[in-house]
Amino acid sequence: MPSSAFTFKKSIATVSLSGTLPEKLEAAAAIGFDGVEIFENDLLTFDGSPADVRRIAEGLGLEITIFQPFRDFEAMPDPIRARNLDRAERKFDVMQELGTDLVLVCSNVQPSAIDDPARAAADLAEMAERAQRRNLRVGYEALAWGRHVNRWRQAWNIVQRADHPALGLIVDSFHTLALNDDPSGIADLPGDRIFFVQLADAPTLSMDVLSWSRHFRNFPGQGQLPVRRFLDAVLASGYRGPLSLEIFNDEFRAAPARLTALDGLRSLIHVEAEAGFGPGLPAPPVCHGVEFLEFAVDAAARDKLSALLGSLGFRHAGRHRSKDVDLYRQGGVNLVLNSEEDSAASEHFQMHGPSVCAMAFTVDDAARTIARAEALRCVLWRERVGDGERKIPALRAPDGTLIYLVDGKEARRSIWEDDFHLFAEEPAGQEAAPQPPHGPPLLGIDHVAQALPFGRMDSFVLFYRTVFGFVPESLWELPDPYGLIRSRALVSPDAEPGRGVRLPLNISESRRTATGRFVSATSGAGVHHIAFATADADALVTDRLAAGAPFLPIPANYYDDLAVKHPLDDATLATLKDRELLYDRDEQGEFLHAYTDSFDDRFFFEVVERRGGYRQFGAVNAAVRMAVQAQLREGARPELYLD
Amino acid sequence: MPSSAFTFKKSIATVSLSGTLPEKLEAAAAIGFDGVEIFENDLLTFDGSPADVRRIAEGLGLEITIFQPFRDFEAMPDPIRARNLDRAERKFDVMQELGTDLVLVCSNVQPSAIDDPARAAADLAEMAERAQRRNLRVGYEALAWGRHVNRWRQAWNIVQRADHPALGLIVDSFHTLALNDDPSGIADLPGDRIFFVQLADAPTLSMDVLSWSRHFRNFPGQGQLPVRRFLDAVLASGYRGPLSLEIFNDEFRAAPARLTALDGLRSLIHVEAEAGFGPGLPAPPVCHGVEFLEFAVDAAARDKLSALLGSLGFRHAGRHRSKDVDLYRQGGVNLVLNSEEDSAASEHFQMHGPSVCAMAFTVDDAARTIARAEALRCVLWRERVGDGERKIPALRAPDGTLIYLVDGKEARRSIWEDDFHLFAEEPAGQEAAPQPPHGPPLLGIDHVAQALPFGRMDSFVLFYRTVFGFVPESLWELPDPYGLIRSRALVSPDAEPGRGVRLPLNISESRRTATGRFVSATSGAGVHHIAFATADADALVTDRLAAGAPFLPIPANYYDDLAVKHPLDDATLATLKDRELLYDRDEQGEFLHAYTDSFDDRFFFEVVERRGGYRQFGAVNAAVRMAVQAQLREGARPELYLD
Repeated sequence: MPSSAFTFKKSIATVSLSGTLPEKLEAAAAIGFDGVEIFENDLLTFDGSPADVRRIAEGLGLEITIFQPFRDFEAMPDPIRARNLDRAERKFDVMQELGTDLVLVCSNVQPSAIDDPARAAADLAEMAERAQRRNLRVGYEALAWGRHVNRWRQAWNIVQRADHPALGLIVDSFHTLALNDDPSGIADLPGDRIFFVQLADAPTLSMDVLSWSRHFRNFPGQGQLPVRRFLDAVLASGYRGPLSLEIFNDEFRAAPARLTALDGLRSLIHVEAEAGFGPGLPAPPVCHGVEFLEFAVDAAARDKLSALLGSLGFRHAGRHRSKDVDLYRQGGVNLVLNSEEDSAASEHFQMHGPSVCAMAFTVDDAARTIARAEALRCVLWRERVGDGERKIPALRAPDGTLIYLVDGKEARRSIWEDDFHLFAEEPAGQEAAPQPPHGPPLLGIDHVAQALPFGRMDSFVLFYRTVFGFVPESLWELPDPYGLIRSRALVSPDAEPGRGVRLPLNISESRRTATGRFVSATSGAGVHHIAFATADADALVTDRLAAGAPFLPIPANYYDDLAVKHPLDDATLATLKDRELLYDRDEQGEFLHAYTDSFDDRFFFEVVERRGGYRQFGAVNAAVRMAVQAQLREGARPELYLD
Repeated sequence: MPSSAFTFKKSIATVSLSGTLPEKLEAAAAIGFDGVEIFENDLLTFDGSPADVRRIAEGLGLEITIFQPFRDFEAMPDPIRARNLDRAERKFDVMQELGTDLVLVCSNVQPSAIDDPARAAADLAEMAERAQRRNLRVGYEALAWGRHVNRWRQAWNIVQRADHPALGLIVDSFHTLALNDDPSGIADLPGDRIFFVQLADAPTLSMDVLSWSRHFRNFPGQGQLPVRRFLDAVLASGYRGPLSLEIFNDEFRAAPARLTALDGLRSLIHVEAEAGFGPGLPAPPVCHGVEFLEFAVDAAARDKLSALLGSLGFRHAGRHRSKDVDLYRQGGVNLVLNSEEDSAASEHFQMHGPSVCAMAFTVDDAARTIARAEALRCVLWRERVGDGERKIPALRAPDGTLIYLVDGKEARRSIWEDDFHLFAEEPAGQEAAPQPPHGPPLLGIDHVAQALPFGRMDSFVLFYRTVFGFVPESLWELPDPYGLIRSRALVSPDAEPGRGVRLPLNISESRRTATGRFVSATSGAGVHHIAFATADADALVTDRLAAGAPFLPIPANYYDDLAVKHPLDDATLATLKDRELLYDRDEQGEFLHAYTDSFDDRFFFEVVERRGGYRQFGAVNAAVRMAVQAQLREGARPELYLD
C-alpha cells in the first residue's frame, strides 16, 4: 500500500553512533541516511577542521542537517549576555565552515538564568539577526529539564514573541513525551516555523528525566513513548524538514555504528510509513505459527538430538531428497536436523555448535512479507535448491538466524512433499523408530525463546515489531542463580493457544547465567528453548517420562509453597507434584509446564498447557528451572554437603 | 584502638550471594559469617528439604538467623485473613525444619490491604500467639513501599499495640534511609523489642524506591546513605542481636559468591568498629603519597618502556642488588621496572602483559596499617628478600595488585639504598642515559588511575575506604568513542598538590572502550594511567616534547571551543594551543594537563599542573584524550576520508 506521499529527509545525530567522527559519518552514509546532526563534542574531539568534516560528509553524500547544541544562551544577566552573543558568533564561524545553516539552541539550565520570556525572546531575536546576516538560522528547543522553559509551548511563545524570520522552533519527541506533555497542539503551528524535528523513544522508567534522557533513549518503536502521536501532530503542522534521530543510549555508544545506524533507519522508515508518508510499506504478515525449526548439527549431535526427540515422542518422519537433512515430526511440530556438509547449516554449526540455524513462520503472504522486509532494509537470503525442490523465501534476523516464510495460501504440506521422502510409519533402511507415543500429541510450537547478547534487546524488538508487526509484552526480571536475566516476549497480534508466534527474548549482563553461557558458547544470539503446546500436560509428561524424556526434577519445597500461594485442591496438587509439573495462574487462566534438562548446556525443550486465557510464559517459575538446571550441571546436590 | 566492647553476630541474606543455595552457604561460612538469612526463593528452588538446609548449615557452622520474607499478611479483608494464618502455619513448619525461630513479616503491599493499625496489630498478635506455641518469633518490618505502613515508627506502633512477647520490630537501614526518614528515634526503643537488624547502603539515585531497592543496594560503605547514623541509633537502643546484610544488587548476583561475601564481612567489621563495638580496628594510615610504582616487564618491554621514560625525563637511577630490577627516577617519582625471571613480577607479566604489578604508599605507620588490613580480612603478602635487603610489608588489592607500605617514620630513602645500587649521574656499564631534563622536575605522582572489570567498582571502593580511609569523590561519566566509562576517585583525606594519594577508578560495560580493552588485554584490573605532578606544565611539556615524549596532539577545535567556554586571555590560549595542553577550571582553581599516547594500548602517562585549589582530574577533557587515542590507534585520520 504505497502512499506515494512526501518522503522526509532522514537524519541521525552523531551522538547516536559509536566511534570516531569519521567512523560515525561513514556508518550513517553506508546505511543510507540523507544527513547527520553534528553533535558538538564529536567535533571538539576530532583531529581535523570543520571544513574537513564538511568535505568528508560531502564525499559520503551526507548533508549536515544541524549543528548542536548551543547551551545556556538566553535570558542571562547582563555581562554574560554580551559574552553569549560573542560565543554565538564563534559558533557561527564553525557552522559556516561545516556548511550547515542551522544551530540548535536548547533552553537554558543555568540557575542564574532569568525567568523572563520577553528577555529570552529579545536575546534569541538578536542572535537570529546576527545569524541572518550570515544566511544562518537558529532553532530553539525546550529541554525537558530547562530551568524556566521546558515545554514546547513555552519555547513556541518565545519564538513568536521574538518574531524573527531566522528564528524557529525545534521539537523533540522525548522532551515533550517524557514530561507527559500533550503534543497535539503542535499540529496547529505553522509548519514552516518548525525548523527541525528530532525523534526519540524510551522505555517507561521512573527516574529523573535528565538521567533517563542521557542513558535510556532509543529509536522510535523500541520504547514505550507515544512517538506516533507526537509525529502525527508535527506532520499535521505542515512541517516537511528532516526527521532526525537524537539518541543518548549507553548500549548504542558501545555497539558497532553500522548496526545502530541500520536500526535507526529502519525505525524512521517505519514511523514515516505509519504516519502515512514516504513510499509506504506493504502490510505486515498474519503469522499463523512456526512451521518448522531447523537445527545445525554434525553426525554426532544429530544422533544425540534425535534420541532426545525420540524420548519426547517425535518420529523420524522423512529425509531430504538431496541433502543430509532429517525431519522429525509430532502432531503439528516439524523439527529439521541439518547435518549436510559444506552448507549454510554446517557453517552455522562450525561457528555456533549444535543450535537452531533457521525458523520458519507460516504467513498469509510470503511475497508481501519479503517486500516489507526489504523496504525495512532487512537482509534477504536465497538458498541453493535442487531440481524440483521448493524455494522458500527467507530473511535474516539481526543475529543472522534465517527466518523462512512459508506461504499459508499455498498447500503447507507441499514444502515437505516437494523436498522430502516422507516415511509412512517405519522409515525404510532406518533403525526401528521409537514407539509411537500413547499420550496426546503436540498441538504445535507454543513459543521459541532466544538468548541475545547483552545490549541487543532493542535491536531485536525493533526487527520483530516493524517487520512482522509483533507486539512487545512487558519486561520480566528472572533471577538465575548466577545473575539477573531480563526477558521480553514479542507476540504476533492474533496469538492463541496452538496458533501464532511467541518469541520471548532474554538477555543477561552476567556471563555466568544460562543466557550468558549460551551467548558465550554460541558466540551470538540464538534459540535457547523451544516450548511445545499440549492440551494435556499431565498425560503428555506421564507418557514421555516413561519413554525416558529428561524432564527436570522439581524441588518438593516448590509444591509446599504452591499449596500456600494458590487455592489448589489436594488432588490437583498431588498430580502436579507427582508429575513434577510447574504451575502458574493469572486472572485469565492457568498454565502447566515442564522443562527438559539442557542439551549440552545450550538449548532445552518445554511442554506447556494453557488453560483459559493465560497469555504469559510462567516467568515466576523460571527461577526454579534455572536453579535446578544449575544444580544438575554443577552437581551441587545436597548429599555432597551432608555427612 | 581496640574497644573490646560487645561483638555482634554477623549474618548475610542468601539473596546477597550468587549461586545455588549450597554454594551460598558454603561461601558465607568460608569467609567467616556467623549466620545466614534464608531468603525464601533460595529454599524453593533448592532440591532438598528444609532439614537438609539445616544440616548443611550446621555442618558449616552457620546459624540460620531468620527466615524471610513472609509477605502481605496483616490487615487483609476477612476471607483472606484466615487463609493468611494458614499460610503462616505452613511457614512455621518450614522454620522448625530449618531450625530457625524467627520469621520476617514485611508490611503489606496489596491494594486490598486495610489501612487500620488496630487490625494489623490484631493479626500480628494472632500470628505471634501461634508462633509462640511452637517457640517461634515474628518480626515486623516496614517496607519502604508498603501500602499503608512504610516507616519504622508505624511498624513500631503496631508492634506496641499488638503487645505480644513473640512479636518484635525489624529495622532495615535501606527502608528507613531511602525515604529520608529519621532513624534517631530508634535509639529510644527498648533494644530487646528489636528482633533483627538488616543493614544495606545504596548510591544516591533518583528513581522509584522499589527499583532502587531491588537492583542497587550495596554493602555499608559502598554507597552514600548515612548507614552509620542508622546503626548508632539502633545500637543505642541496646539491641544486641545479629547485624545482617540484605542486599539486592544485579552485580552481586553475577559475581563469585566468595568475593561478595568477603566484601560483606569487611563492611560489617568496619561499621561495627566505627560504631565503637567489636574488637576494634587500628586507625587508618596517614598516606603521604605514592613512594613508587613497579612494572612487570620482560626484557623487550623493559627496553621500550625505559626509552619512553627517558623521553619523559626519567633517569636510570639504580639497579637492584640481587634481581633484574631497575629504578627510574625523576624529582619525587620512583618507577621500578621488574624483569626478574621466576618472580612474582614475571608471573604477573605472564598473566597480564606489561603492567603495573605493585604500588607503594608512604604511610605514617606501616605496621599499624597492616594490622588494620588484616583485621579487615585483607590478604597480606611477604616477598622473598635477599640478605640485608629490606622487607617491605604489603597487602593485596582486590585485583591481586600488591600494595607496599613504606613506613614514613623510617628514613624513606633507605629502601632504595638498602636494596639498590644507586647511580650517581651516568650509570656504570650502561649506555649513556638520556640528557638530564632542562625543564622543571616532577613533584611526585599526582594520581594513579585504574581500570576495573565491570561490576567490581563497589569492591574497590570498599577496600580503599575501609582499609586506607580514602574518601570517594563524585561519579563521572566519560564518553569514550566506543562506550561510556564511569569514573570515581578515591582520595586520601589530606591530599594536596604533590602530597597524598588519589586513585581514580574506571569501569566500562563496553569491551570496546579504552577501559574495556585494558581489562580484556590484561584479564583483570590494573593501573591504566599514571599522572605526574608538576608546578609548570608549560615548561615541562615543552622540554619533554623536545626529547621526543609522545604527548597526544590535541584538535584545534578543542581550543576554539575553550576560547568560547572560558575567559582566557589570548596569550594563555596561544600557549595552551601551542603546547597542546588541556585545560579545566572550577571555582577553586585551574588545571593544565597533557597525556601521552598509550603504551601497547595498555597504560599511558599524564602530566598535570594544579593551580589554586583545583581538586578534580580534568574529567571534561577525558573525551578528547580517548578520541585522539582512538584516532591514533585506528588510523582514522581525516586525510583517509578526503580525496
